Amino acid sequence: MRPKMILFGDSITEDSFGEGGWGASLAHHFSRSLDVILRGYSGYNTRWILKVIEKVCNGESPIAMTIFFGANDASLPDRTSAFQHVPLHEYKQNLQSIVSFIKVPTSLSFYNSFTVQQSVMRWFKTKGFRITSACRKWPTTLILLITPPPIDEDGRIRHPFGDNPSGLSERTNEAAGAYAKACVEVADECGVIGVDLWTKMQQYPNWEKCCLSDGLHLTPTGNKIVYEEVIKKLTKEGVNVETLSADLPLLSQIDPCDPLKAFQN
Amino acid sequence: MRPKMILFGDSITEDSFGEGGWGASLAHHFSRSLDVILRGYSGYNTRWILKVIEKVCNGESPIAMTIFFGANDASLPDRTSAFQHVPLHEYKQNLQSIVSFIKVPTSLSFYNSFTVQQSVMRWFKTKGFRITSACRKWPTTLILLITPPPIDEDGRIRHPFGDNPSGLSERTNEAAGAYAKACVEVADECGVIGVDLWTKMQQYPNWEKCCLSDGLHLTPTGNKIVYEEVIKKLTKEGVNVETLSADLPLLSQIDPCDPLKAFQN
Repeated sequence: MRPKMILFGDSITEDSFGEGGWGASLAHHFSRSLDVILRGYSGYNTRWILKVIEKVCNGESPIAMTIFFGANDASLPDRTSAFQHVPLHEYKQNLQSIVSFIKVPTSLSFYNSFTVQQSVMRWFKTKGFRITSACRKWPTTLILLITPPPIDEDGRIRHPFGDNPSGLSERTNEAAGAYAKACVEVADECGVIGVDLWTKMQQYPNWEKCCLSDGLHLTPTGNKIVYEEVIKKLTKEGVNVETLSADLPLLSQIDPCDPLKAFQN
Repeated sequence: MRPKMILFGDSITEDSFGEGGWGASLAHHFSRSLDVILRGYSGYNTRWILKVIEKVCNGESPIAMTIFFGANDASLPDRTSAFQHVPLHEYKQNLQSIVSFIKVPTSLSFYNSFTVQQSVMRWFKTKGFRITSACRKWPTTLILLITPPPIDEDGRIRHPFGDNPSGLSERTNEAAGAYAKACVEVADECGVIGVDLWTKMQQYPNWEKCCLSDGLHLTPTGNKIVYEEVIKKLTKEGVNVETLSADLPLLSQIDPCDPLKAFQN
């Protein structure tokens, strides 16, 4: 069986197999070595996702997983998408809980606080104990925690989600930045990989229109940035086409003079 | 767990998550309802694939599966891709064996001839017996047998696979057409769905350059034709977004006044 990679997130993940999408690009890149499994839930925030995480994260352990939430949590609490808003401190706790659900050993799950769990795990580590075997879920899965993208408020006003008589953007780049910062902090605290998309994307010239189609969702250029950042991190962690074995012999490994030899084992 | 759909074929399947690819479009279309699993093996013909089919077709039954071989089998036996050539009568038998491997009940597998197996199954059917329960593999899987695409010989000469000092195309449209006809016949004989891509694509104006990038592989327009044909057949058989249940509540089903209510069950 091929190993798999799960893409877990909101609409920016759900849409990732559309035109020029970062998910499709990953599936294409790993076309002979990984199954790329889409678990994007449009509109979802971390509060909602925690209600259903057991349904999403089950079955065989994936080799890698992107966790890409925050764009909805960062909706402002007094504007048209207030029902999706999650306060910053809760967003941070929720992200920790998501990582904890996936990675923390059962033996430590009675410590309700993730910070305490982390301290205990670190203590175990300094003593040289390996605790990954007593896992709750997928302790060996490589987790990439992706921050929400930056927001182009002008784009949001031009392309509102539903009616927006106020004419005010329901998201701001400043709020998205605060959630992105929290996301990077959680990645550091939990010892998983952080992808600071909010910062990275703003380094691109005219990012507001080049990277975002409606001030929030990604253009093909925006998708390319996500794809390249994910590939960069995966490669750094040893998950790449060279280290993963190809499913069945590649054409280049098949001898034109005796093709069936390649299938003898 | 979500149901899945498997895309099984050669390079035209392996490349189907590239730019504008038909596989990515299917995954996008079914982003909340089906896992689209890529099993494309560049360069493979039906003879090679029969050596490895047990490795590919295992695990849970998919709801649907595209089987898309023939472009390599139809390579001419006296030109540069002769090592991929499979004679027409063997191609037809091999396709039958692939379908048989996936769908024929174990209880009938001692009849070596697929035609005999089919006759026996038809006889059972006329008597009103249901034989799907004693299955060998995946008796309920909806199989779409896709013919090879047409060939633009000029494109093949301009974009040869490796050295081609002869200057002759290693494939012809006439040969591809004979294999396509055999593929449609197998679909009819086996009672699975045929997709006559060879005929369909040639109805498109300037199909040689519009649909094919190198006389064999698909442009975004060519990919769109495959995607639309597959969707059309799936829909006709009742596999569509409306009949498949969405994985977790859609945003439109979540009450903005009480979002968590949607997650109570």
